Amino acid sequence: MVSKLNIVILAAGLGKRMQSSLPKVLHELAGKPLLAHVVDLARNLTPDQICIVIGHGGDLVKEKIPGSDLTWVTQIPQLGTGHALLQAQPHLDQTGATLVLYGDVPLVGIETLKRLVSAVSEKQCGLLAAVLENPEGYGRIIREQDTSNICRIIEQKDADASQLAIREINTGIMIIPNEYLHEWLPKLENKNAQQEYYLTDIIKMAVDQNISVISSEAVHSWEILGVNSKQQLVELERIYQKEYAKTLLAKGVMLIDAARVDVRGELICGSDVEIDVNCIFEGTVILEDNVKVKANCILKDVTVSKGSTIHPFSHIEEAKIGQNCKIGPYARIRPETQLNNHVHIGNFVEIKKSQIAAGSKVNHLSYIGDTIIGQNVNIGAGTITCNYDGAYKHQTIIEDNVFVGSDTQLVAPVKVSYGSTIGAGSTITRDTPKNELTLSRSKQISLTGWKRPSKT
Amino acid sequence: MVSKLNIVILAAGLGKRMQSSLPKVLHELAGKPLLAHVVDLARNLTPDQICIVIGHGGDLVKEKIPGSDLTWVTQIPQLGTGHALLQAQPHLDQTGATLVLYGDVPLVGIETLKRLVSAVSEKQCGLLAAVLENPEGYGRIIREQDTSNICRIIEQKDADASQLAIREINTGIMIIPNEYLHEWLPKLENKNAQQEYYLTDIIKMAVDQNISVISSEAVHSWEILGVNSKQQLVELERIYQKEYAKTLLAKGVMLIDAARVDVRGELICGSDVEIDVNCIFEGTVILEDNVKVKANCILKDVTVSKGSTIHPFSHIEEAKIGQNCKIGPYARIRPETQLNNHVHIGNFVEIKKSQIAAGSKVNHLSYIGDTIIGQNVNIGAGTITCNYDGAYKHQTIIEDNVFVGSDTQLVAPVKVSYGSTIGAGSTITRDTPKNELTLSRSKQISLTGWKRPSKT
Amino acid sequence: MVSKLNIVILAAGLGKRMQSSLPKVLHELAGKPLLAHVVDLARNLTPDQICIVIGHGGDLVKEKIPGSDLTWVTQIPQLGTGHALLQAQPHLDQTGATLVLYGDVPLVGIETLKRLVSAVSEKQCGLLAAVLENPEGYGRIIREQDTSNICRIIEQKDADASQLAIREINTGIMIIPNEYLHEWLPKLENKNAQQEYYLTDIIKMAVDQNISVISSEAVHSWEILGVNSKQQLVELERIYQKEYAKTLLAKGVMLIDAARVDVRGELICGSDVEIDVNCIFEGTVILEDNVKVKANCILKDVTVSKGSTIHPFSHIEEAKIGQNCKIGPYARIRPETQLNNHVHIGNFVEIKKSQIAAGSKVNHLSYIGDTIIGQNVNIGAGTITCNYDGAYKHQTIIEDNVFVGSDTQLVAPVKVSYGSTIGAGSTITRDTPKNELTLSRSKQISLTGWKRPSKT
Repeated sequence: MVSKLNIVILAAGLGKRMQSSLPKVLHELAGKPLLAHVVDLARNLTPDQICIVIGHGGDLVKEKIPGSDLTWVTQIPQLGTGHALLQAQPHLDQTGATLVLYGDVPLVGIETLKRLVSAVSEKQCGLLAAVLENPEGYGRIIREQDTSNICRIIEQKDADASQLAIREINTGIMIIPNEYLHEWLPKLENKNAQQEYYLTDIIKMAVDQNISVISSEAVHSWEILGVNSKQQLVELERIYQKEYAKTLLAKGVMLIDAARVDVRGELICGSDVEIDVNCIFEGTVILEDNVKVKANCILKDVTVSKGSTIHPFSHIEEAKIGQNCKIGPYARIRPETQLNNHVHIGNFVEIKKSQIAAGSKVNHLSYIGDTIIGQNVNIGAGTITCNYDGAYKHQTIIEDNVFVGSDTQLVAPVKVSYGSTIGAGSTITRDTPKNELTLSRSKQISLTGWKRPSKT
Repeated sequence: MVSKLNIVILAAGLGKRMQSSLPKVLHELAGKPLLAHVVDLARNLTPDQICIVIGHGGDLVKEKIPGSDLTWVTQIPQLGTGHALLQAQPHLDQTGATLVLYGDVPLVGIETLKRLVSAVSEKQCGLLAAVLENPEGYGRIIREQDTSNICRIIEQKDADASQLAIREINTGIMIIPNEYLHEWLPKLENKNAQQEYYLTDIIKMAVDQNISVISSEAVHSWEILGVNSKQQLVELERIYQKEYAKTLLAKGVMLIDAARVDVRGELICGSDVEIDVNCIFEGTVILEDNVKVKANCILKDVTVSKGSTIHPFSHIEEAKIGQNCKIGPYARIRPETQLNNHVHIGNFVEIKKSQIAAGSKVNHLSYIGDTIIGQNVNIGAGTITCNYDGAYKHQTIIEDNVFVGSDTQLVAPVKVSYGSTIGAGSTITRDTPKNELTLSRSKQISLTGWKRPSKT
Repeated sequence: MVSKLNIVILAAGLGKRMQSSLPKVLHELAGKPLLAHVVDLARNLTPDQICIVIGHGGDLVKEKIPGSDLTWVTQIPQLGTGHALLQAQPHLDQTGATLVLYGDVPLVGIETLKRLVSAVSEKQCGLLAAVLENPEGYGRIIREQDTSNICRIIEQKDADASQLAIREINTGIMIIPNEYLHEWLPKLENKNAQQEYYLTDIIKMAVDQNISVISSEAVHSWEILGVNSKQQLVELERIYQKEYAKTLLAKGVMLIDAARVDVRGELICGSDVEIDVNCIFEGTVILEDNVKVKANCILKDVTVSKGSTIHPFSHIEEAKIGQNCKIGPYARIRPETQLNNHVHIGNFVEIKKSQIAAGSKVNHLSYIGDTIIGQNVNIGAGTITCNYDGAYKHQTIIEDNVFVGSDTQLVAPVKVSYGSTIGAGSTITRDTPKNELTLSRSKQISLTGWKRPSKT
């Protein structure tokens, strides 16, 4: 174990193959920038320092990856991985060791890194190795024939045919004692096909000084995959989602299809939770015991309490759903909404920034915005809270035990008092008295002799 | 062939790895409890008796798996498969044979079992064997070197290294003459690593008595898979759905993606039926000739007659759709609804417990509940049947050739008579006269000098 | 290279295994008939002539595959591939060569055909060959032992055991000099197990006359797959979609799941376009720079301009969406709709045959049809344009800076003039004056002592 752990994350690459104006490390995997995955991973190791080397689009990168614990270093121009680390050198401690991670290698697991870090002393170098079916593109690990000791790493572009045949590769993730880094980094040269300063050349320096270089392998082979193209990004997205689904299943969450669930953030589930096909979870979603989420739902930053069911095609954001609620199908619940227990929200209903107390129902084709609804309220089909006057939003208050007839407009600010009944089709512009029937209605008349238009 | 066929289904297991309060055999595969799959399979063999051994959550199991043909036996405590069958012994016939099935092995095919059952006489034991790439966890079949005759089965936990290397395994499904069962079951011992009474030990007894033990293999290797975890359950779900899709394709149903269709029940299709991606079918769904179901539809217990198209995002339950109807997109049709031919139900429309005669249209943003609609009726956008008075539901009747203007409320009970026209925005509380224009409307006025609120 | 290129597409087959009343070659792959894929491919080779041999359902085939460049030939009865080509013979040029394609082999790539066509002179025959793991069903290529020259093709049904073991197969796609075709086609015989005239027998004729037969391979092995059943059709559909997704990714389009996107037509994307899971694109869809299409959207013949976002569950057909628009979720936009920049269309809103100018919003539960909306208009929730009088559709005009209160009906033809405000719940039947508040409203009253119905 090392006395101090520094982490340097290389994140300066342009990512030309991404064909995007966005810096490569800001492309999202599971709804989070690639670099944010790596930074979160780094933080999990509780290092003494995290230093990130940025280049292309560096300002945007800094803006999108917040954290007072991060030290930012700029590498312009970009002359190779060794050159990148050289920019970070002034920030490195004198003792301890530095773990080098990559902003575009987002799936590395914490166990894998703990293994690597704990494998080395402060007098050893360690690198994360892998044996690949197809080592194309990676630096190969050259070992001594007799001892099998690592003696150097040769980059793909500099390798000869026999070296290209080697299937043990360097992932680029390595840990080097700071003492040596301070000595070696300034000595790196760029005498190679690419005219770049390769970080991997320090392995040769270690060997030349008889400093042992050990290797460690990743827990899962996919952890070492990097992102250089949209094709690779979508492949990593699927690996991530598949692994997340496995974790959910292992915790007892029932998924109907492990290949058709997307979690972009954190999904925390109680017992006996069921999730049907094609659901998407974003931000932090909590599904308590016995919650069912039916097919094609999208939930973002939502808590669904025990026993509630979210029916198909529902779209819920920044909301708290109480116990034993029935939501949907086709329910749209927008931010700042809180539903208490036993609330029903039905089809083609939009709820925005509202609170609905226990036992109340909005079952059909309604828009409820900026509204406080009491208990045991029934909102008829087609009810609309007219919360916007063209300039400001106003509040509607509907007290307990109210019955709002269908196709009513509640022109806010307005209060529908306790026990009120509103007649269908009313436009309510003033507060209603308690327990009375209030309505606005024209007389029904029939016109004798009127002819409906017909095609001629 | 045996003279009498008894079937015992072992269904007492706790299923701790399911991490659920639900008994394992009640977890659903394709919308039906695991045990129900096995019971249906057993019934297909037309046995003389089906006996189910239950334990954990037994009362719930009995409740969820109805059938007067089922004999229930309780096994508490649970001391192994032999002990389980011992509880069923009093119910077994004296002649014939007993087929042992498992409540958590739901995919076994009828052909596989017919093969096994017909392979044995009443003086032979038969077991369903399989040769697996990875036999981990299964009891291995030990055969005599010379004759290849089966001589015993050794459980994973009791096997030595050379036995563990055997890849031919016992699926646990077996058929044993009742004569022998009555003799052997009481003799089973629990002298093994698990201190359990293994049903498989009777194979050794058979061999000791020179009774031949034959083996048979499953038609498909996946038939023998069991469910011990949610991960395994979802894997079996996908196998089931993939096979169901194959069957549909083989019958000429066009699926756009065989990996994105879910059938949880029975889907009966006529010719030239097309099903787009991500559709779900529950209960019994009948799609007649030339029906098209577009993407993302959910149908449960629905009949769709010839030539009708269900457009995307539709959700239909317990309904009958006539010929040449156009439904959706975003149509919600709820139980007890019947649509005649050439009916159109459009977007954001909810129909509940209603009948709609031929040629009528409800195309936009409407709620029609507890309503009878005649022929050639046009229901305008935003029409709502106010069927609920806060206590009871009431009926709306709309006769033939009616035109209901947009945003009308029909306050039930009410009848809109033959040929009526309803003016837009009316609240109709009384029956309308035939062939007349009926409306309730306030005068349109303009207020001079009024200022719309503006942000200050 | 040949002096003239004739192409004959064999498309007469019944396709009994498709179990459909539709001729096989009219079944759709990626939303386009199989034969249309092959015709488009043929056209890409800019041949001197395309001749299509039809039989079963030929009239329907002709109707569905338009093109004045196509020569149609009927083959009735159908006595084999040689017989099919014989029907086309009168149309073939005297010089040049004829490329034979198949209406049920739709994935062949243009590169593969260019390679084959450019490999032959007018004194050589060429065939597209493949080496398959499982050659079952294909004609095998028999080569001379010494020279490896092709000497004949033997059909599956006529092959002996040693011939069946050959894994090099004839795809059926071939190019033959017209000079030889005119000589050989009339000489074909049907002395074989099937009593059919095999086109492949001309290979033997070539060899007998010492005319060289060369072979060429497809760029991708899946290109040669044919469709004989719905199972095969769905497999080809998935190959097609997977390859299309690859192409999109290679162009820099971000897909969240390459296995859950369906393109049935052409999808043209600018830079930094993102497409979430389960989207379907039909016809020609153009997504300009920075467009995001969220999950579960269906777009057909749509242009979405720069910076716009289509939220989940939206369904858009034949529409033009301006820049920086926000559409959906649950937006239904129907044909002949044009939205200018910064337009918002919200949930449960249907727009049909309308134009909406910059900055206007229709956010909730509305139906807008046959309408022209000016700039900076706000349409309140539940607004309905009553465009249909039972016989004709009428137009609504809403000028700039209008505010339409919720639940308003605009009875067309009607004009809401510049700057008008419409009070909530109004029925507007006459044009409104500019800049005034217009409404139709009944007085709100409360009835003392009224009792809401209650369950007894």
